[in-house]
Amino acid sequence: MNEDAIIRKLRRNASLIGDDCAVIQAPRNQDLLFTTDFSIEGVHFTRASPAEQIGQRAVARSLSDIAAMGGRPLYCLVSIALAGWSDQRWIDGFYRGVNKLLRQTKTHLAGGDISHAKQLVLDVMLCGSVAKGKALRRSGARPGDIIYVSGPLGGWRHKSEIVPRLDIGRKLIGKATSCMDISDGLALDLHRLCLASGVAAEIDSVPLLEGATIEQALQDGEDYELLYTAQPKCRVPGIRIGTIRKGNGVLRYRGKKLQPIGYDHLQQRS
Amino acid sequence: MNEDAIIRKLRRNASLIGDDCAVIQAPRNQDLLFTTDFSIEGVHFTRASPAEQIGQRAVARSLSDIAAMGGRPLYCLVSIALAGWSDQRWIDGFYRGVNKLLRQTKTHLAGGDISHAKQLVLDVMLCGSVAKGKALRRSGARPGDIIYVSGPLGGWRHKSEIVPRLDIGRKLIGKATSCMDISDGLALDLHRLCLASGVAAEIDSVPLLEGATIEQALQDGEDYELLYTAQPKCRVPGIRIGTIRKGNGVLRYRGKKLQPIGYDHLQQRS
Repeated sequence: MNEDAIIRKLRRNASLIGDDCAVIQAPRNQDLLFTTDFSIEGVHFTRASPAEQIGQRAVARSLSDIAAMGGRPLYCLVSIALAGWSDQRWIDGFYRGVNKLLRQTKTHLAGGDISHAKQLVLDVMLCGSVAKGKALRRSGARPGDIIYVSGPLGGWRHKSEIVPRLDIGRKLIGKATSCMDISDGLALDLHRLCLASGVAAEIDSVPLLEGATIEQALQDGEDYELLYTAQPKCRVPGIRIGTIRKGNGVLRYRGKKLQPIGYDHLQQRS
Repeated sequence: MNEDAIIRKLRRNASLIGDDCAVIQAPRNQDLLFTTDFSIEGVHFTRASPAEQIGQRAVARSLSDIAAMGGRPLYCLVSIALAGWSDQRWIDGFYRGVNKLLRQTKTHLAGGDISHAKQLVLDVMLCGSVAKGKALRRSGARPGDIIYVSGPLGGWRHKSEIVPRLDIGRKLIGKATSCMDISDGLALDLHRLCLASGVAAEIDSVPLLEGATIEQALQDGEDYELLYTAQPKCRVPGIRIGTIRKGNGVLRYRGKKLQPIGYDHLQQRS
């Protein structure tokens, strides 16, 4: 197994691979969106998970960022540092998972890098597009806006598949006053949204995944649902969870102050 | 030290950071270029190197890919998985190195990801642009073309700084028939260029870095000079090293067959 052999295999499904850079036509009258997400063995997944699922999740995490901006995914770079245990069969399974989700979302594999490391490291970069000046931001929430999530929460313990909410994101364009995805837990991510908007938030109720506790819904990572706000008169899809208030980042849950604790990427997951 | 604290610090110099994706204006009448390169502790660098130099090299490797296409760098995503030993002082030094080269090349830091791993892992994604349809490719070399390199070779043992050849790359637009950067050694990379173009190559002489052997110049990685071809009548900058011949990937050095051996990213560097 060598680098050129892996690349030859990849090129069968990805005509953009082969030069030092992928060459892409810039979309017209659109803004570009860039995001990149690590998936690291022992941090984001264990080698016990099926290779296909690891590939699916690695791409889904970046697609979720595109969804959070109301964008459409276009191109993807998949970088992989292989560990000693990851053989050709594992690599084939991984790319099956990657390519399945890329096909479903009409995203083109445009390149990446290959190397090796003590633990398996994936980094997925996504380029998307959105109508000029229309991207959803974290900074537009205003007091009185209603807070929504796109689905029930409870974190990584309670779901095997991440479904990037691309359809919902696009429907929110021109409607939501702010949006982001919940990757590090509702409490921490809502706190970030409030800081970006210069507001506070009051949560009334949180929809839970089957078997999940309210603590998991508030503080666990890897939900990948969208978190967004809209004016009360505006009709948007999703589940109402609370209201934006005046303030600077303070969260309340059913009247009590809520600490913005969640998943910190520099701490090992418990 | 936590994730949000690092990001707050980065945002002081990078206004594009803060949402789930960076939002970028698409350049007009230009093609986009995408590339991404890992820099991994124990593979591409050791922790004994100064943090600033590690930052400089990590960005330079991706800039070199933009140079190889004749492009102009625009935006950069820097992802970093911190190891146990990398403290705040190291991170500050690393970003000093990154930002210095980004300033020099007028490239904007637009985001990235932060996580942790057993060994330090960097991944630098670059987006550049080039006039529509004008990108330099590996596939245009034709028999009779002269082969050039942008500077003396000898690999990673003989240079502390990578200088991405952006100026030379841009001068080759409309002149060079093919181009790539030498990241894995002249022999392996020229072999790749020949395969992409469906040609063979004959090397007459190779310019050496001070102290480097011809074996190092042929087979060591991390030169990051440009390798390109042009028709004999065409005047281009650089050092002539040989001639493109009919054939399919075969290399000759002073009449003898040369094996396409170089740095393979799946093997540990000796």
